[in-house]
Amino acid sequence: MAVHTEAKRDQACLIVHGPDQPGIVAAVAALVTRNNGNIISLDQYSSDPTGGDFFQRVVFSRPDLAVAMPGIKDDLEKTLNPLGMAWKLTDQSVPKRMAILVSTSDHCLLELLWRHRRGELPVTIPMVISNHTNTAEDVRSFGVPFFHVPSGDADKSHPESEILKLLAGNVDFVVLARYMQILSPDFLDRAGVPLINIHHSFLPAFIGAAPYRKAKQRGVKLIGATAHYVTRDLDEGPIIEQDVARVSHAHSATDLQARGAYVERAVLSRAVQWHAEDRVIRHGNQTIVF
Amino acid sequence: MAVHTEAKRDQACLIVHGPDQPGIVAAVAALVTRNNGNIISLDQYSSDPTGGDFFQRVVFSRPDLAVAMPGIKDDLEKTLNPLGMAWKLTDQSVPKRMAILVSTSDHCLLELLWRHRRGELPVTIPMVISNHTNTAEDVRSFGVPFFHVPSGDADKSHPESEILKLLAGNVDFVVLARYMQILSPDFLDRAGVPLINIHHSFLPAFIGAAPYRKAKQRGVKLIGATAHYVTRDLDEGPIIEQDVARVSHAHSATDLQARGAYVERAVLSRAVQWHAEDRVIRHGNQTIVF
Amino acid sequence: MAVHTEAKRDQACLIVHGPDQPGIVAAVAALVTRNNGNIISLDQYSSDPTGGDFFQRVVFSRPDLAVAMPGIKDDLEKTLNPLGMAWKLTDQSVPKRMAILVSTSDHCLLELLWRHRRGELPVTIPMVISNHTNTAEDVRSFGVPFFHVPSGDADKSHPESEILKLLAGNVDFVVLARYMQILSPDFLDRAGVPLINIHHSFLPAFIGAAPYRKAKQRGVKLIGATAHYVTRDLDEGPIIEQDVARVSHAHSATDLQARGAYVERAVLSRAVQWHAEDRVIRHGNQTIVF
Amino acid sequence: MAVHTEAKRDQACLIVHGPDQPGIVAAVAALVTRNNGNIISLDQYSSDPTGGDFFQRVVFSRPDLAVAMPGIKDDLEKTLNPLGMAWKLTDQSVPKRMAILVSTSDHCLLELLWRHRRGELPVTIPMVISNHTNTAEDVRSFGVPFFHVPSGDADKSHPESEILKLLAGNVDFVVLARYMQILSPDFLDRAGVPLINIHHSFLPAFIGAAPYRKAKQRGVKLIGATAHYVTRDLDEGPIIEQDVARVSHAHSATDLQARGAYVERAVLSRAVQWHAEDRVIRHGNQTIVF
Repeated sequence: MAVHTEAKRDQACLIVHGPDQPGIVAAVAALVTRNNGNIISLDQYSSDPTGGDFFQRVVFSRPDLAVAMPGIKDDLEKTLNPLGMAWKLTDQSVPKRMAILVSTSDHCLLELLWRHRRGELPVTIPMVISNHTNTAEDVRSFGVPFFHVPSGDADKSHPESEILKLLAGNVDFVVLARYMQILSPDFLDRAGVPLINIHHSFLPAFIGAAPYRKAKQRGVKLIGATAHYVTRDLDEGPIIEQDVARVSHAHSATDLQARGAYVERAVLSRAVQWHAEDRVIRHGNQTIVF
Repeated sequence: MAVHTEAKRDQACLIVHGPDQPGIVAAVAALVTRNNGNIISLDQYSSDPTGGDFFQRVVFSRPDLAVAMPGIKDDLEKTLNPLGMAWKLTDQSVPKRMAILVSTSDHCLLELLWRHRRGELPVTIPMVISNHTNTAEDVRSFGVPFFHVPSGDADKSHPESEILKLLAGNVDFVVLARYMQILSPDFLDRAGVPLINIHHSFLPAFIGAAPYRKAKQRGVKLIGATAHYVTRDLDEGPIIEQDVARVSHAHSATDLQARGAYVERAVLSRAVQWHAEDRVIRHGNQTIVF
Repeated sequence: MAVHTEAKRDQACLIVHGPDQPGIVAAVAALVTRNNGNIISLDQYSSDPTGGDFFQRVVFSRPDLAVAMPGIKDDLEKTLNPLGMAWKLTDQSVPKRMAILVSTSDHCLLELLWRHRRGELPVTIPMVISNHTNTAEDVRSFGVPFFHVPSGDADKSHPESEILKLLAGNVDFVVLARYMQILSPDFLDRAGVPLINIHHSFLPAFIGAAPYRKAKQRGVKLIGATAHYVTRDLDEGPIIEQDVARVSHAHSATDLQARGAYVERAVLSRAVQWHAEDRVIRHGNQTIVF
Repeated sequence: MAVHTEAKRDQACLIVHGPDQPGIVAAVAALVTRNNGNIISLDQYSSDPTGGDFFQRVVFSRPDLAVAMPGIKDDLEKTLNPLGMAWKLTDQSVPKRMAILVSTSDHCLLELLWRHRRGELPVTIPMVISNHTNTAEDVRSFGVPFFHVPSGDADKSHPESEILKLLAGNVDFVVLARYMQILSPDFLDRAGVPLINIHHSFLPAFIGAAPYRKAKQRGVKLIGATAHYVTRDLDEGPIIEQDVARVSHAHSATDLQARGAYVERAVLSRAVQWHAEDRVIRHGNQTIVF
């Protein structure tokens, strides 16, 4: 991580979105320039050049960024708010704080911990929370705190409020790395941060439980995985990333599950990385990924 | 084609399936040997080694195959029927006769005609039937007869019986290469040959009409296509082949359709080739593809 | 094509590249704005934020573009030339003129002709030139002129000058769609337009002749194809696009060639499309593809 | 592992190869049957039906396999040796013993240790040997012995003989999981077991050191990895598996290396699994992978 964030010292990421209008790219670019920034990369998308939605991600370098941030934000407010544009400015050298929720399957969890240790994910991991204890030792060997919050039987409100207490103020987003409990709408509201889930099918195929068994029954020739933001509608949130692997009649449902595990961890890792790098913008039930 | 089928002179393909039982591979291999055949390739699959279903495809060469066929079939009957095994023996140098049904989109149609002309599909194409006329000239430039059967308005029985008259006795299977009419159960019964359809989505996602529009709305990151045998249940038949292509937020529904066209023609071509080479065995609502 | 270019009416594409420097994005965006343009898409890349090379592609719409072009070019000259930036402005509704050179293999040729007919390639095709005649009828059935220029035996200067006479002033770029003659440095100089070649291997593996045979001998598990700009160094020009397909021990060199044909036509088509849309910028022996 | 090998109790794998001849499949199948075996899967390949090489892999179940093995081997000797066929019979419930050699990069190492712990690799891992110590703690946390053998300076014979002492009699094959020392021909001879290496390029492209840097310089659009058996000719051994990932101009050589790491570990894992399951047969400088 040290190396990773060091490379991003004095780099800012600006996300702008709102109603498309002439001159908006010029206005943003001019703003960066007059604040002594040098644009490193710029991505832009318009859902429709005439009257659609405008999305932009600009990464720029600026010496003494931390000192300059308040001034740049003032300028953004004065420049973009009158145009009805929403914006978000982040210091790329400040990693996002990511909590991981997991049940017994360790493949997605370990992939994230290991990529983090290699310095490939610009995040810190203040905690892993599980309703089981089998991954505790592994998690702690990565120097990450592990908390066990057993799932209540019928009443889920107790474990959910315990999890909320752990998260409160400590995390910027949450990853459900094969967490096999359905979270209540109330939990999502109170968490107040984005949640990313990995679903073990190529959504919208095989919504719900046991997708690999359903895939075997349907006789598909490819299996997949989908990373998406969690919304109140189960398996219906905005998709961030998907991928597939080839299978054949010779694979059992268990084989599909084993193969699928490698698709799941790859897909979830990419989604987490892109989210952490502010590359994903939610747009209704879809995502723009720059 | 000449080259293709010439290479398969005196080659037979034997498909065997039924209840798994010890000694069945040995019995088949011994039968081939005592009929002076030399096994070129052999694929075998058991759904469950104890009490499951057994599937086998054997290709063997045998001098003067055409003359020997009746004798081999007698032997197969005596050897395999008592064991409750179904079998099918085909002369690989005799191409299957394939009819193509198409509406206005030409991409799948042309792909099949091209591949056939290149000698890559072991079939003959006695006819293309369409409810439109826009592809007539292209089809005939390949030396293939084109028949126009307009789709009736409310009453579909008339065009269906006209199509049945054209097919009767002249074809071994039918390909729906983007034929946008739903065929009646009665048609399927009376056709009496397998029908292969290309569906423009990664089934079971986006069943029914306008899958690319639905894919855009759901914000998927991959689009796909599925080739399957046609059954009475629309979009529910046994899947032969599937594939996908990556898309992004920047693609419109029209872009998805254009990209999808290339997946469709590749998937359909592979399915047709495998069917024509007797590589696909239906097993309930699934397929074994050797 | 009508539909395709109609959709791009009054759209301009501006390519800018040169030494990276602060304010360059702002300067370009401001220029577009003051010329009444509305930015539709913008891609930008810096090889190194401090002292590297800067590349940008901007597509903008502008009413009455054709009338405004000279004024915009004046502005570009005044704005960008003093900064040492190279630029190119094109009217996206004016398709590039593409000649195709081909020998006997028709798969890449037909793919381009067919995609063009579908309106997917923003080009016109004023001519196909071949050192053989087997594709003449197909080419002309697409309404495209076909010219036969036999390859001389030892002396290649004669056919080359005949080809140059055909091309002169009539084309904006040339595609070698499996043209099996090596073109002389002199030809490349005098052609004066970019040439795109499709090589039937995953370069830099299997440079030179008979790559599928070499691939079979080496026992690779994937075969590929590469589209690249032609330079004086055979098979060494800047790569535009590559892709691969999976193969196995069971495939003969002939099978590899048949499978490879589908990779070749897909790779070449993408490269041609991107070139025609001004998405490819040469940078030394590499390409930037936006 | 317990689960994995338990599922393979009383299952044998028989590999047969040699000159193709009529009746060989029948002879093998009959042998299995008369030894009370039931064929579970069978793969067969002939390099040329007339006068080529024959390769077969048969998995069969047989109650009390361990007791029956000597008798089956006697039968194989009597049946196949006179035909000039080589064969190998293994008890699938006995995992192969795999040593891992590694330098500082941990990605391939950890992938193998994880997959092994998940029960997906039918091997035991008696030791990891490294010329560095950075992975020691991780390795031992998996319950696997770690041995540090520093690489000698000029003279490599000392570390090589130390490694040979550790391996002698204890392992069935060796995996070079990014081991950055070149092993001498003498070492390969004396090791007496197969060695599998992962090369970080799509061989035969970018042979030798620093392939990602070379890939960046050549401007390729895909990077790859290759798992192969080690021979005296560096990077020239029989290829077991390859795969690629898409990259663009925007990726630095360091980015390529990071992306490539995920291809490397996937490719190496598949090669190790197939080798451990006796699915790979060497054939000159190529492999048959069933």
